[in-house]
Amino acid sequence: MAERIAGPEIERLVQLLARLPGLGPRSARRAVLHLIRKRDELLGPLGEAMRVAHERILACSVCGNIDTSDPCAICRDPRRDAGLLVIVETVADLWALERAGLLAARYHVLGGVLSPLDGVGPSELNMASLVQRIGEGGVREAIIAVNATVDGQTTAHYLADLLAPLGVKTTRLAHGVPVGGELDYLDEGTLAAALDRRTPF
Amino acid sequence: MAERIAGPEIERLVQLLARLPGLGPRSARRAVLHLIRKRDELLGPLGEAMRVAHERILACSVCGNIDTSDPCAICRDPRRDAGLLVIVETVADLWALERAGLLAARYHVLGGVLSPLDGVGPSELNMASLVQRIGEGGVREAIIAVNATVDGQTTAHYLADLLAPLGVKTTRLAHGVPVGGELDYLDEGTLAAALDRRTPF
Repeated sequence: MAERIAGPEIERLVQLLARLPGLGPRSARRAVLHLIRKRDELLGPLGEAMRVAHERILACSVCGNIDTSDPCAICRDPRRDAGLLVIVETVADLWALERAGLLAARYHVLGGVLSPLDGVGPSELNMASLVQRIGEGGVREAIIAVNATVDGQTTAHYLADLLAPLGVKTTRLAHGVPVGGELDYLDEGTLAAALDRRTPF
Repeated sequence: MAERIAGPEIERLVQLLARLPGLGPRSARRAVLHLIRKRDELLGPLGEAMRVAHERILACSVCGNIDTSDPCAICRDPRRDAGLLVIVETVADLWALERAGLLAARYHVLGGVLSPLDGVGPSELNMASLVQRIGEGGVREAIIAVNATVDGQTTAHYLADLLAPLGVKTTRLAHGVPVGGELDYLDEGTLAAALDRRTPF
């Protein structure tokens, strides 16, 4: 179709861009036209940045984070508290916590959550490496920071059971009303949790 | 910020992707994680497709379309009616008409619309080349296929005046109810145009 219009190179770029999350065929076409308009400021540098990323980025063999070095910058950072291990589902969650800048801990990226229906069992996730890592000692507290979804919470309970014999203190994120949240828009489960765990002024 | 987390290469990729229309910082980060997960099927090929596009794509000196050859494939296509010239605002509009596959015409891409407030006058658009192209003869009808916006219609009228002395037949797209459109959702102007230009069964 568009091949006939503007050559296979453009069509290929549209098709590849359309596979990014958040972009469909129409927005991919718009993005390609934008790229071509900004050919030297954007198209060239972006292509080069992708080439570099493709060449250099790898998963950290310790924590599962992505970086250009292995172990990653977080695992190598001596200013971080190696005794505090935050267990997250994905690198995106790790980034979210790092952006918030709330703690200087180390991480362990599971790579997903348990989901029997999708064929994701413990062996599909980075759980063996987690047990080994904690078993080697040095971890004082494991904070299970998975999402508050059904699969996330199932995974959290599984992890708590898995880590119990290792004698490490295991905690999880609190449930409650999000800051800035309006009660009217919250689900019953959140309201119940917020009431249940109410704290004195 | 993320530089500290995962190295400047990833942060640079996020920043460049966030400049695409339809992607913000958050979706750019999601896109980068997706790219890295699909590193060999997507990240590598996309980087390469961008490199190729950056190297080869140029604007057609005849019509303003983008292609890897100059003149572009449309201008070189002998099966197209060279007497029928469709004037569009952007390459995206050209693509939209080509996707519809309604006519085998040639195009002229203005590169925008007249917009005095934004400092876009006739000399900022590909109008001189349009007049020259039609002046050279061979064009039977010029279809002004600009958007039905205020600026688009201003531009259409300006073009009609500009082309009048050249003796070429000038037409524009019809206004009316879009196919599949519901009257309840249409603006007054569209309804007025559709009533005004009603046709017998």
